[in-house]
Amino acid sequence: MKKSLLISLAITTATGVYAQEALSSSAPVASPVINPDNSVTLTLKAPAGHDIKVLGTCIDGYRADMTISADSSRWSYTTSPLQPGVYYYTFTMDGVNVLDPSNIHILQDVATLNSYFIIRGDGKDIGSLCSVNDVPHGTLSHAWYRSDFHGADRRMSIYTPPGYEYSDRRYPVLYLLHGMGGDENAWVELGRAAQILDNLIAAGDAEPMIVVMPNGNISEDAAPGEGTKGLTQPVFNLPQCMDGGFETSFPEIMNYMDRNYRTIASREGRAVAGLSMGGFHAMNISREYPESFDYVGLFSAAMLNHATADSPVYRDAGSKLARQMELQPSLYWIAIGTDDFLYKDNTAYRHQLDSAGYPYVYHETDGGHVWKNWRDYLAIFAAQLFKNGEKH
Amino acid sequence: MKKSLLISLAITTATGVYAQEALSSSAPVASPVINPDNSVTLTLKAPAGHDIKVLGTCIDGYRADMTISADSSRWSYTTSPLQPGVYYYTFTMDGVNVLDPSNIHILQDVATLNSYFIIRGDGKDIGSLCSVNDVPHGTLSHAWYRSDFHGADRRMSIYTPPGYEYSDRRYPVLYLLHGMGGDENAWVELGRAAQILDNLIAAGDAEPMIVVMPNGNISEDAAPGEGTKGLTQPVFNLPQCMDGGFETSFPEIMNYMDRNYRTIASREGRAVAGLSMGGFHAMNISREYPESFDYVGLFSAAMLNHATADSPVYRDAGSKLARQMELQPSLYWIAIGTDDFLYKDNTAYRHQLDSAGYPYVYHETDGGHVWKNWRDYLAIFAAQLFKNGEKH
Repeated sequence: MKKSLLISLAITTATGVYAQEALSSSAPVASPVINPDNSVTLTLKAPAGHDIKVLGTCIDGYRADMTISADSSRWSYTTSPLQPGVYYYTFTMDGVNVLDPSNIHILQDVATLNSYFIIRGDGKDIGSLCSVNDVPHGTLSHAWYRSDFHGADRRMSIYTPPGYEYSDRRYPVLYLLHGMGGDENAWVELGRAAQILDNLIAAGDAEPMIVVMPNGNISEDAAPGEGTKGLTQPVFNLPQCMDGGFETSFPEIMNYMDRNYRTIASREGRAVAGLSMGGFHAMNISREYPESFDYVGLFSAAMLNHATADSPVYRDAGSKLARQMELQPSLYWIAIGTDDFLYKDNTAYRHQLDSAGYPYVYHETDGGHVWKNWRDYLAIFAAQLFKNGEKH
Repeated sequence: MKKSLLISLAITTATGVYAQEALSSSAPVASPVINPDNSVTLTLKAPAGHDIKVLGTCIDGYRADMTISADSSRWSYTTSPLQPGVYYYTFTMDGVNVLDPSNIHILQDVATLNSYFIIRGDGKDIGSLCSVNDVPHGTLSHAWYRSDFHGADRRMSIYTPPGYEYSDRRYPVLYLLHGMGGDENAWVELGRAAQILDNLIAAGDAEPMIVVMPNGNISEDAAPGEGTKGLTQPVFNLPQCMDGGFETSFPEIMNYMDRNYRTIASREGRAVAGLSMGGFHAMNISREYPESFDYVGLFSAAMLNHATADSPVYRDAGSKLARQMELQPSLYWIAIGTDDFLYKDNTAYRHQLDSAGYPYVYHETDGGHVWKNWRDYLAIFAAQLFKNGEKH
């Protein structure tokens, strides 16, 4: 394992200079290669006589056969020209998943790992927004807050905007919640939240803000591998994810932030948003604590019928929603793709809002229940937050 | 890719309850499985008719053939009983690297990725020290400091000890440097620095301290994928890693810390240590700024003859070392394994110190130029730092 390092560090003692060798025998080909037309060539060094495929969001139809080179040493596939964005892929060799050995960049999505790359456009496209650009960068922290409710220290990710360390000012806070099977790393890694915020703030398209990404799976204290359970694999814990415990204990997170960070600790300085299960949490949290949040974002939100869930949080939803709307939140934003399996439920929820005369902003897109949409939604939602002078 | 999430999130709308399904079709077997005797069984689901091996630090002889199951559906290998520690492995299938599809836990070491697991003992063994235990946890941050010397914002990792957020006290700082091909993530990920410090501090075996892990590869602003160059692959940049620039500009990092964190901003509150190239950096930085550091740790340090390197940092090394030793650092600690390819150079350096009568503490171990040793060295070194009343 250390062979590559050993080779490269090997001193040619006669001259006192390190010999510089190939990094690793495991990366003999360049992959991925982004071509001038934004098509991407993926290559795997593998012998002939196999069934080798590539699967991924960069592939038309999600799956394709790879083609062996004339010298039978490597397999390749070139995508169609791609729009700016973040793309995942993995190879399979006779049915076995093979991450691209030439690409160290891996994203975990629930229990699967994928290689990934980013296609950038030339401006404010989502690929550029998801990239690390030459702009001031915020700080990303992983901190642990005490939850007396859950009897545990729990891990969360916190983005503070560029300049936070140097200034005395207070900042508004966006609480940004993940979906089922996700954790406090999901918006950081898959969601590129720090890069999106850095770039929006640098362009003047979003207010400088703190972004808090807690772990909404209350059966765990942290993401798999980051908590006291050790190097576990991801699990769904539906009853514990949506039993009201996370919503009920949410003030512990706000209190931690307001005590330890220079937050604007009042309604006009707080937003809560989430995707899928996190959208469900955001809907309930904002409804349960309407005096705490002036901005709400529901991204492909789950909209459960909670007749069976026994939590005070889910009771009297109608009157709580009425109270929340009475306070006239500056933004109640609902976004979903037309192919999302939760589209119908979101439509029903909007009809409920419509018939009660409650205002909201609706953003409908193409696509399904995918991170491609959630990154877009974050960029669009964050740009609308904490604008001075609107409704205040 | 989202299939597993879609399945699991699929609402059975009639009952309003989410159906809970298998997480992913890509993890049909459990692997790794730690057996009661601390042997570990690694399993790959793959068809017959292949050459399937496992490589890794958990394998006697580093490489072994795997054995196919009676039903020809999966390949397995069981290690010998293992000592506590962190272990890496990867499969190969007809020569192609295959990361364990059942294990989401991956470590990057220069340009290679490996699956990993941890064997724990029952006390202060390194496996337990490297684990997340039920103790107070520090905060781990990734921040960017301005380097006017390099004309860039540069990323670093910062560990603050448990209670930092709640207290007004000032803390000493350990500057902890990586090796060639590493970056600001190396001590965090491969080195388990946050876990080691959490556990040492909780046990009362180390003083609460801040640990700063900068990026010593000054041709880069950040680890691959975290910087403005985009999703690059790791590269060695020897001339720029060891041309004196990192050492010369090191006060920019200390200034950032002293300005933005509650540090003890004086000699008795600072240590600098590093592994391999980072040991070389620590040796030079502590010699160049002897008034700044009271503790020095050289872990498997590179000890170059710098006749050819043109930097003021490397000039007058003898008189600078004399000045450093005149100030009587509380600890000048040298550690190396007898199989390390730098062992001979370290011996020569110790002879140089001996003949000048300069005191140091020497810690010799088994093993080579490997993270197994560096995690041990960090635990032993950190426990000796910032003890009140010793020499002060």
